[in-house]
Amino acid sequence: MQRSYAIIGTGALGGFYGARLQHAGCELHFLLHSDYEHVRRHGLICESKDGDFTLPKVNAYRDIRDMPKCDVVCVCLKTTQNHLLPQLLPPVVKDDGVVLVMQNGLGIEAQVAEIVGAERVMGALCFLCSNKIGPGHIRHLDYGHVGLGEFAIRGISDRMRAIAGDLNRAGILTQLHEDLAVVRWQKLVWNIPYNGLSVVLDATTSELMTNPHTRQLVEQLMREVVTDAHRCGVAIADETVGKMLAYTDKMIPYRTSMKIDYDERHPMEVEAIFGNSLRAAQQAGAKSPLLEELYHQLKFLDARNTASSR
Amino acid sequence: MQRSYAIIGTGALGGFYGARLQHAGCELHFLLHSDYEHVRRHGLICESKDGDFTLPKVNAYRDIRDMPKCDVVCVCLKTTQNHLLPQLLPPVVKDDGVVLVMQNGLGIEAQVAEIVGAERVMGALCFLCSNKIGPGHIRHLDYGHVGLGEFAIRGISDRMRAIAGDLNRAGILTQLHEDLAVVRWQKLVWNIPYNGLSVVLDATTSELMTNPHTRQLVEQLMREVVTDAHRCGVAIADETVGKMLAYTDKMIPYRTSMKIDYDERHPMEVEAIFGNSLRAAQQAGAKSPLLEELYHQLKFLDARNTASSR
Repeated sequence: MQRSYAIIGTGALGGFYGARLQHAGCELHFLLHSDYEHVRRHGLICESKDGDFTLPKVNAYRDIRDMPKCDVVCVCLKTTQNHLLPQLLPPVVKDDGVVLVMQNGLGIEAQVAEIVGAERVMGALCFLCSNKIGPGHIRHLDYGHVGLGEFAIRGISDRMRAIAGDLNRAGILTQLHEDLAVVRWQKLVWNIPYNGLSVVLDATTSELMTNPHTRQLVEQLMREVVTDAHRCGVAIADETVGKMLAYTDKMIPYRTSMKIDYDERHPMEVEAIFGNSLRAAQQAGAKSPLLEELYHQLKFLDARNTASSR
Repeated sequence: MQRSYAIIGTGALGGFYGARLQHAGCELHFLLHSDYEHVRRHGLICESKDGDFTLPKVNAYRDIRDMPKCDVVCVCLKTTQNHLLPQLLPPVVKDDGVVLVMQNGLGIEAQVAEIVGAERVMGALCFLCSNKIGPGHIRHLDYGHVGLGEFAIRGISDRMRAIAGDLNRAGILTQLHEDLAVVRWQKLVWNIPYNGLSVVLDATTSELMTNPHTRQLVEQLMREVVTDAHRCGVAIADETVGKMLAYTDKMIPYRTSMKIDYDERHPMEVEAIFGNSLRAAQQAGAKSPLLEELYHQLKFLDARNTASSR
């Protein structure tokens, strides 16, 4: 069976994965906002370290009600737009379809489950460095692999394997996870210190790793997130912290996605990544003081940053 | 008996208090560095909300060895210069004299006691808004009152009363404290949140109070400092936190002294205010996570700020 895909939010992430899937032969439908006219006429351009390609003709939509119901609905908006999901998702997902949450943060799948039912929700962890450099014009810089996990059940489902097959044919390395919560928390171990401190201290990952004080703080934040995960019933191996530090030491100096949003005066995903994690941890009885301090700092910066851009 | 005063560090603070004391008839000796030539020739100017005045002739020194031994030696350097104190203090303090530590932070009196002996040390808490706007030119903006406390003993000593008498004659409101540790920690309850967050978030006190997230964080930091003080054997009333918040609500939007240092690319007093407090609290068994996170953030910013100014 050939699966149809809807891309909800055709930006740096949705544009990249959607273009790769269509390039590999899948049926794709793209929801666009500001770029709609341009993409309808000119299609998508993907510049990539794995090879450039162009899609002169794509199925572009400005209104969700014009889209056909699809097998796989990929949520590729920034989480700051998720208040739109109750309007966007029901018209476009087939009864036996799946909504693939390709966003950062914790607890988004549960929000989507409220809208479409838990059994239709799947999570995708995207490890991607890409930018949108013009209307319908994506530049893929690095990485791109995806982790998949079911929301309502544990273990590896047939539909996970089917979607992974499509992604693999599109050249996207895909890992199947038996427990989505574990990998969501694992990703937070990296995202919380580096996304948060890069914004608060106006710093790249390598600056944070070079200064002994921020290096220590990164490690303390990581250990706090590991403790929070335990409180929430998710075991993360102690060695994860050391591995992530070593992995980041070897990365090229990197401007985090949250820092890019901040610099471009876009709303930051503070609630999805920090607020939801903090509330989950504190509801489970953790104190999470380091995370809470960072959360309050980011909320202050986000409010000022988006207020002054208007 | 007429007391002689030495001002070690004739800047916004030392210049202000020294000029006021000389203006009131005390014998003053000023140690200067970059402003020496100018002040030797032209004296000191003090613009003040309480009335402007000029001292055309002052006893100015560039070398501590040229100064007479004094009864009261006022340490008015930034604490980032305190590595100089072992050279500066012994030549200038009389055998029965007193070193008055007029600096911010915790544990400075103990460092001075190592140099001149604990019985010759007194602490002064200065509540002063002033700037040095040119060589020997002080602008006094607001406040100015001083709290005095003995270091080696508790209670109110005769020499405290004598120094307070001189300050009062110079128009400086002075409060005598029976326990220096209590008031040092009390001042930290204000200094730690506002100095720290004003730098990390590039914010005035009123911005920090208006945003609900930073307001909550300020209060959490204050409560943590109160807990730290308790661990160190110092009781601070719970209502202190509410009073300080209300007091700051009524202040005009204020750029903290640490923020001014940061903006002018001077070294910040991170160790005196944050590092010493953190170490004292953790040695007493407190965890102080909020203070520790702020400390690491400030150390990172201070290192980058002073590195790029060279």
